[in-house]
Amino acid sequence: MGRGDLEPEQIVRFEEGDPPRVVLLDQRRLPDEVVELECRSALEVADAIRTLAVRGAPAIGIAAAYGLALAAARGDDLGAAEELLGSARPTAVNLRWALERLRHDPSVERARELHAEEVERCRRMAAHAATLLQPGTRALTHCNTGGLATGGYGTALGALRAAWERGLLERVLVDETRPLLQGARLTAFELERLGIPHAVIADSAAGSMMAAGEVDCVLTGADRIAANGDTANKIGTYALAVLARHHGIPMYVVAPTSTVDLGTPTGAEIPIEERSPEELTARFVARNPAFDVTPAGLISAIVTEHGVHLAPYSESLAVLA
Amino acid sequence: MGRGDLEPEQIVRFEEGDPPRVVLLDQRRLPDEVVELECRSALEVADAIRTLAVRGAPAIGIAAAYGLALAAARGDDLGAAEELLGSARPTAVNLRWALERLRHDPSVERARELHAEEVERCRRMAAHAATLLQPGTRALTHCNTGGLATGGYGTALGALRAAWERGLLERVLVDETRPLLQGARLTAFELERLGIPHAVIADSAAGSMMAAGEVDCVLTGADRIAANGDTANKIGTYALAVLARHHGIPMYVVAPTSTVDLGTPTGAEIPIEERSPEELTARFVARNPAFDVTPAGLISAIVTEHGVHLAPYSESLAVLA
Repeated sequence: MGRGDLEPEQIVRFEEGDPPRVVLLDQRRLPDEVVELECRSALEVADAIRTLAVRGAPAIGIAAAYGLALAAARGDDLGAAEELLGSARPTAVNLRWALERLRHDPSVERARELHAEEVERCRRMAAHAATLLQPGTRALTHCNTGGLATGGYGTALGALRAAWERGLLERVLVDETRPLLQGARLTAFELERLGIPHAVIADSAAGSMMAAGEVDCVLTGADRIAANGDTANKIGTYALAVLARHHGIPMYVVAPTSTVDLGTPTGAEIPIEERSPEELTARFVARNPAFDVTPAGLISAIVTEHGVHLAPYSESLAVLA
Repeated sequence: MGRGDLEPEQIVRFEEGDPPRVVLLDQRRLPDEVVELECRSALEVADAIRTLAVRGAPAIGIAAAYGLALAAARGDDLGAAEELLGSARPTAVNLRWALERLRHDPSVERARELHAEEVERCRRMAAHAATLLQPGTRALTHCNTGGLATGGYGTALGALRAAWERGLLERVLVDETRPLLQGARLTAFELERLGIPHAVIADSAAGSMMAAGEVDCVLTGADRIAANGDTANKIGTYALAVLARHHGIPMYVVAPTSTVDLGTPTGAEIPIEERSPEELTARFVARNPAFDVTPAGLISAIVTEHGVHLAPYSESLAVLA
């Protein structure tokens, strides 16, 4: 696929024709293989979401929107399709958000519009987040929050990209992000294409990198932000926030408003997906929580496309209602 | 190999004969394959240490002692053998400690005596450490500190084993310990053999397990303990200590006096091995520090075979001089 930006339609798109289909860049096989997955029904889109062929809170919302439009184009039962797509994964609120937005107009045009709006939100929040960074920033990030995670441009990685373009970013440390290695596989793939200096580290090395003075700020995305600012994100984000606080390093969450769930009061009400222990190891007794919740008190700022939200988040996020 | 205890001679032993050799259980291939590695020279023992066929601070000290005895049995240059063995890995002080103890009597008998002494030290420190634990303890541990790491019985894992035998231990959460998965491969293998309930978790999940109230204490081994108590151990130990402190959970280091280096004033003087980035991933730019240093202030107690040492460690460890 060469270098440079991943175009939104490379990541997820709707193709009219006979049969109509949703086409996804299969993120399970990156970076070894760059192959597309064709989904010909809402069920196939839901399977792609559940098996992480497409992942990242904004991207699965977009995929679900296209999936609902596909069901409509096929003349399928829309209630059943919405149920399938909405329940594919529990933690990110974006699935429900996207499906609600298409409920009264489940057309392909509306899904494409929602996709374009999400990418535009990313560009706006990246510009806001860049205002928080100083020249020479050495950032640390977790999981993948680039174009792959959002259908184009990215949230935390979009912010780093904007910082790089503005000359504010020196380099990025990338948590490999066990068990599925979204950092080592996907974030490194995107940073390489963008020409941004980076190094992958074991997740457990983040703390000592901070202690060594090699991290100026932590930026992550989010899967769901509760009304009080508590933020569910990839397992390990919470530990990074505690470590950042211990070292006096700011911890920024960058996410679109489609990820903010004012209907969920605090992190305690966010359902945490526990995935198959086999993702960790097929051999041993294992536990595999896929997300954790970072209390609002450990987050320095939450950046949406509306701007930089500061504590108390119950007030600063309420303006999004 | 069946269940039950790993006998010291299964882990590392000297075999007389023609030629004489040091025989190691190859820890790189566990648990998939239970195979032994025969070393016929000090160079081959040093290679086994460097490539992690044998690992764990006490175990590599014992292997080095057998390696020096092997050089003596072959009539090789002992100065050269000591140089090879002593420089195989930089962080653990046990290599130097063991070689110094054999310098004036590099016999097979002396090496076997040192091995037996180390296993006996493990049993004593396990009994001391068990006094720190309450009934129903749900412990978290990192890397492998069992018999495999010490030539028999184990340090932190030995303490957990003693706690289990005393009815104090409910279960163990095991960090998988990237990049080489000593937790998932070796600690789970040992706990399974011993019948101790356990679950492997991604390293990044430890923080949220603590937040969920699922961890009563953290126990780790050590590769080198400085005179002030600062402790070098497998990368990720430092982060665990910060997380434990944040959650008010005690963090215990269990190690024999062969790991205490009163000649190193603080952690800042401990050399940290940076291993090949290819251990993390052959594909990406990566950094792979293999150890980190946990400041004494984050450690609740250091347990050696002499007992439980409390802060100020510069005083409580000085009695070991």
